[in-house]
Amino acid sequence: MRIFLEPKSLVMIGASRKTGQGAYNGVEVMLRYGYPGRIYPINPKADEICGLKAYPTVAAVPEVADLATISVGRDHVIPAFHQCIEAGIRRVIIISQGFSDADKRGRELQEQITLLARGSGVRVLGPNTLGVTNNFRGLSTGFIDLPRPVKIPPVALIAQTGLLQVAPKEFSGCNWGKAIDIGNACDVDFVDALEYFGTDPEIRVIAVYMEGFLRARKFLEAASRISLTKPIIVFKTGRTAAGARAALSHTGSLVGEDEINDAAFRRAGIIRVKNVSEFRDAVHSFLKFADLSGPRLGVLTPSGAAGIMATDACDDFGFTIGNLPENLAGKLKEGLPDWVHIGNPVDIWPVGMLGDGFSSSYKQALCGLLNSPEIDAVLALSLSMSSPLHQDIDIAAVVAEAGQETNNTKPVSMWIYGTAAAATVEKLEAVAQVACFDSVEQAVRGLSFVYRYHQLKGRKIPAQRTFPYDRKAADLLLAKGRQRKVLLGEDALDLLSIFGIPAAAGKIARNWREIEAAAESFSYPLVLKLSGEAFLHKSEWGGVVTDIRNKKELRGAWKKMKENVRLRNPKLKTGFQLQEQAAGKELLLGLKLDPKFGHVLVCGLGGVYAEVFKDISRELVPVGRSEAEKMLSSLKTYPLLKGVRGEAGIDQEGMLEILERLSFLAACVPDIAELDINPLMADAGGCRAVDARIIW
Amino acid sequence: MRIFLEPKSLVMIGASRKTGQGAYNGVEVMLRYGYPGRIYPINPKADEICGLKAYPTVAAVPEVADLATISVGRDHVIPAFHQCIEAGIRRVIIISQGFSDADKRGRELQEQITLLARGSGVRVLGPNTLGVTNNFRGLSTGFIDLPRPVKIPPVALIAQTGLLQVAPKEFSGCNWGKAIDIGNACDVDFVDALEYFGTDPEIRVIAVYMEGFLRARKFLEAASRISLTKPIIVFKTGRTAAGARAALSHTGSLVGEDEINDAAFRRAGIIRVKNVSEFRDAVHSFLKFADLSGPRLGVLTPSGAAGIMATDACDDFGFTIGNLPENLAGKLKEGLPDWVHIGNPVDIWPVGMLGDGFSSSYKQALCGLLNSPEIDAVLALSLSMSSPLHQDIDIAAVVAEAGQETNNTKPVSMWIYGTAAAATVEKLEAVAQVACFDSVEQAVRGLSFVYRYHQLKGRKIPAQRTFPYDRKAADLLLAKGRQRKVLLGEDALDLLSIFGIPAAAGKIARNWREIEAAAESFSYPLVLKLSGEAFLHKSEWGGVVTDIRNKKELRGAWKKMKENVRLRNPKLKTGFQLQEQAAGKELLLGLKLDPKFGHVLVCGLGGVYAEVFKDISRELVPVGRSEAEKMLSSLKTYPLLKGVRGEAGIDQEGMLEILERLSFLAACVPDIAELDINPLMADAGGCRAVDARIIW
Repeated sequence: MRIFLEPKSLVMIGASRKTGQGAYNGVEVMLRYGYPGRIYPINPKADEICGLKAYPTVAAVPEVADLATISVGRDHVIPAFHQCIEAGIRRVIIISQGFSDADKRGRELQEQITLLARGSGVRVLGPNTLGVTNNFRGLSTGFIDLPRPVKIPPVALIAQTGLLQVAPKEFSGCNWGKAIDIGNACDVDFVDALEYFGTDPEIRVIAVYMEGFLRARKFLEAASRISLTKPIIVFKTGRTAAGARAALSHTGSLVGEDEINDAAFRRAGIIRVKNVSEFRDAVHSFLKFADLSGPRLGVLTPSGAAGIMATDACDDFGFTIGNLPENLAGKLKEGLPDWVHIGNPVDIWPVGMLGDGFSSSYKQALCGLLNSPEIDAVLALSLSMSSPLHQDIDIAAVVAEAGQETNNTKPVSMWIYGTAAAATVEKLEAVAQVACFDSVEQAVRGLSFVYRYHQLKGRKIPAQRTFPYDRKAADLLLAKGRQRKVLLGEDALDLLSIFGIPAAAGKIARNWREIEAAAESFSYPLVLKLSGEAFLHKSEWGGVVTDIRNKKELRGAWKKMKENVRLRNPKLKTGFQLQEQAAGKELLLGLKLDPKFGHVLVCGLGGVYAEVFKDISRELVPVGRSEAEKMLSSLKTYPLLKGVRGEAGIDQEGMLEILERLSFLAACVPDIAELDINPLMADAGGCRAVDARIIW
Repeated sequence: MRIFLEPKSLVMIGASRKTGQGAYNGVEVMLRYGYPGRIYPINPKADEICGLKAYPTVAAVPEVADLATISVGRDHVIPAFHQCIEAGIRRVIIISQGFSDADKRGRELQEQITLLARGSGVRVLGPNTLGVTNNFRGLSTGFIDLPRPVKIPPVALIAQTGLLQVAPKEFSGCNWGKAIDIGNACDVDFVDALEYFGTDPEIRVIAVYMEGFLRARKFLEAASRISLTKPIIVFKTGRTAAGARAALSHTGSLVGEDEINDAAFRRAGIIRVKNVSEFRDAVHSFLKFADLSGPRLGVLTPSGAAGIMATDACDDFGFTIGNLPENLAGKLKEGLPDWVHIGNPVDIWPVGMLGDGFSSSYKQALCGLLNSPEIDAVLALSLSMSSPLHQDIDIAAVVAEAGQETNNTKPVSMWIYGTAAAATVEKLEAVAQVACFDSVEQAVRGLSFVYRYHQLKGRKIPAQRTFPYDRKAADLLLAKGRQRKVLLGEDALDLLSIFGIPAAAGKIARNWREIEAAAESFSYPLVLKLSGEAFLHKSEWGGVVTDIRNKKELRGAWKKMKENVRLRNPKLKTGFQLQEQAAGKELLLGLKLDPKFGHVLVCGLGGVYAEVFKDISRELVPVGRSEAEKMLSSLKTYPLLKGVRGEAGIDQEGMLEILERLSFLAACVPDIAELDINPLMADAGGCRAVDARIIW
């Protein structure tokens, strides 16, 4: 990757003779950007382009260039690529579009490029890309003429589009240090770029714009490693499209693609953002704030109203208003009327007006908050006015002084309003640990990204626990399932039992005699169900009777059920399943094979409300004890599982073990497409799968 | 109010001799602002202030001024106010702070000011206010020196703080036409200001910043009327504090203060915003967009990635991607390679590059979308670069032309990125029906405010339906309730029955004989409960047995219950309630007396999940049929109430009638503090209250 970003010489195929307005001439753009290396434009019809000697072919170039860019009609791309390979060039950027972004023919062409790349060992970026920007080296391979930034921040962009390179300010708040547009990613992809920036000493923050995953597991693996030392921000779009997928089981339909993405990002320590404004503010926060180790904010404000807005925002983003340092209120109130109240938020206006003036009071309060061990970060709001009457309010100076005097290492997140805001923000941004945002809520949100990262950094990488199980019995059932593509009812429950997941006692019965016999070994109350693939939606057949308390009721239920079937379809043969009725809370557990990430484990609320509330948690397999705990405790219904108001909760130990065992089952049977335990009944005495379905 | 905003002459009490930096001199600020009227500074120690003759007292002023401002220490405010009253001044602004914003003494002083105002008929704004700004008349009574805006938008601000006057750009995107800071609102309040701007021909949009309600019902009444012709945006803060209130009943605890505010705002046709950025964008949208009558957007973008971001944002804000006008794709594709795909979002970059150029293609596509009857508004994204190489992209010109050529009346919401964005935005903002925002999601959100307003404008104002009821029987029970402060169990159910709300058949019984007798007239299954105020939390006493199927089980339940009580407290006398068991979905209904708005009607999910999911809808009383319908249909669990997958829903007609009857009950018994029906069991056969509690 390094050669892509630091080429000493560059062949530009498809360099146009046209220059100036509307030409989109890559050579012209590169020269204006101040690229210090050697450029060889290739154009058989030109002798010179932008003052550089032009060459008819790559072969005619007097050296083997480090990098080539190709910007020609799609049908001419492969011949141009051949020229590069033959000339010995090892890195190629294909800017042209009309490939997998377009139609079938485009996909075929791209496939050929990939094969050529693999065959020759030449690495290809694109097609359909703006290429790379390296502001540390004056490199910009695109056709949009951007001003070269003066200040180069240590942030790298990896994107599936050129948009973010064209609009660096909108997406980063400042600029990119380096950027790679992977385009259609026929060869170089997210993983290559991420690995590179992961060890790049010029880069401290990695920002990713992603439409779809490529080599998803590899990406997560790399991100898990790199995110321990560099924050990785991912803006993943296409949320809507992802949600629309069809699914066969409950688990399938309840687990949207995008929720799986969330679980994956969390697992890899990635900070996901959901829109442009979040992306911009997150990049900004990570560039300015070193770390945020707790949720207790000190709020400094020149307006009571802004303090209230700040309190609302703190609540929205999970922060708390910290305790005011013990002596601060006293110090600030010295010499002021009794009625002036000092709390957190610190409303500094009356203090300044009635006392030493705004700037001096502001600084005193800020120092007090920064010095306090009970405050983790400061949210500092201020006006800044251009009027000559208000030059006494020199907020940039006092914040800088306060930072120095306290040797500050805590984040100071600011919102500056008023007619001199822009100039003041510029000065404040030069102060260490200080970042300014466009509104009070954005200032709080900015802190939230850094705090989330702090929490994610502490996570553990789980290993799959193993459990003994009867492999022979399992293989028999699995063979049956693979053949039929599905295991239902008692079969599915049997497989779960083999893996140590308890199921409600039950038996299959063909007639009254068998039902009667089965009932002998069970204790009432019982449940009678129709059994067999014909009765997939049992309730539509009147095929479930619960709470059967004695033999008489059992016989009644059996007769009714037979009659129900006879009325709808007299030819169908009835089968039955008799179960002990399990009491407790109705839960739902499952596995889903995600094409990108492999198995995803799911647990949550079952029963009639399952689809309405979608109270579901998801984790990628493997799930260890601590992930299982998080899965349970992150459910909205967790208080009920834990037990409330003297009412007993469920057997949590048992439930956690089931989650770990399901994760193990997924590891042992990697070809399961979907597995549904619905319901699993759980009470203080234990958890029992009541119905299950496994789909291949 | 008009005199407050258009005074011809002005007395300024507490005018300081100090001027310049840090002086906060109101006279100096007013003069710099260019106030054209006569100013009389009052200061016994000065002959002249800022070149104006100063007067020792108000009485010394040679005319009766229209308006006085008072800016002195709080202990001098009342004497100054007296001077004004005696001099015949009818409007006073008290800028000084330290009143109800401070301490007990401050509250007493403010109370005295209110009494003086009421007694004299002099209207008072404040205390603790920056006063008023009227940019149409060059008036700014505050002590912060603001530049007088060149462009004056037809938007009024009513705020409980001066912050928004000091930061007009941050809160309005532009400026305020007029602004009133009601401060502590000892006299003039939201209602006065709202009524005034409601009929002010210079004002088209009203923006309100509110921390707490004052004269809440009056405010809603005025807003309901005014919002039919002028959009009212309210930024209500203090959400967190509001949530912390304690409550006695389920209904009480499930209905947060802030959710009631939401219901109230909706009822009054008010657009509520939740933070600074929403406030700014909402004001901006209403100033620029005339109306948005449907949710179908056309999206025009120079980047596929931006199109995906737009699609996500549309989904987030409830918009749909409209159908592409039939002939548009064909027209745009003329002469282009086959592989260029035109959809909605319209990705215009390849069209422009391979065809007629960006500007011309952009205009063609925009005209097509604006002309289409299947598109309600356009979301138009574009880059704008300052480089001389990209002057072919003249987005401001083509958008203006497209607007003219189509006689456009549809909103065009834009996000412009790139190095020339600021200059381009300025030009675009001059085009009718075009507004620019800071990100793609904000551009979509901007449209959502206007669309929400469009939908709210169509609402009906409900009237309370009346029902016949047995007033005598009701009065008996109400007397008992008022005396005991509570009605429980059968009493509460009886009252509901009197108002036509069906209850499960039940009876109170003191002993086995009475239980047995009661059971004769009921049909099994039955429910036996402990009854009496000692057993408020019945389940803790083991005091509820359900699903009793015969006399034997009934006797068992009775014995067990007696024993449970004896074990915990042998001295307690047991009472019982026997009910027919009602089947169906467990719902919760209730009334809560809100101190600001009066009775709030509540319905939602009951049972164990009630507090976990808080699936509750709320409406202010009166609730008519259409509000009742909205209450039901806005529940997350509504699909289950309607019936899904062949499973029967509930008797919706019955439920709607119950909601209307509860609203009527609230109207008849205005002193009920909280009423809880929990659960109400509902199935296809009907709805029956099973337990209820009424608190005074």
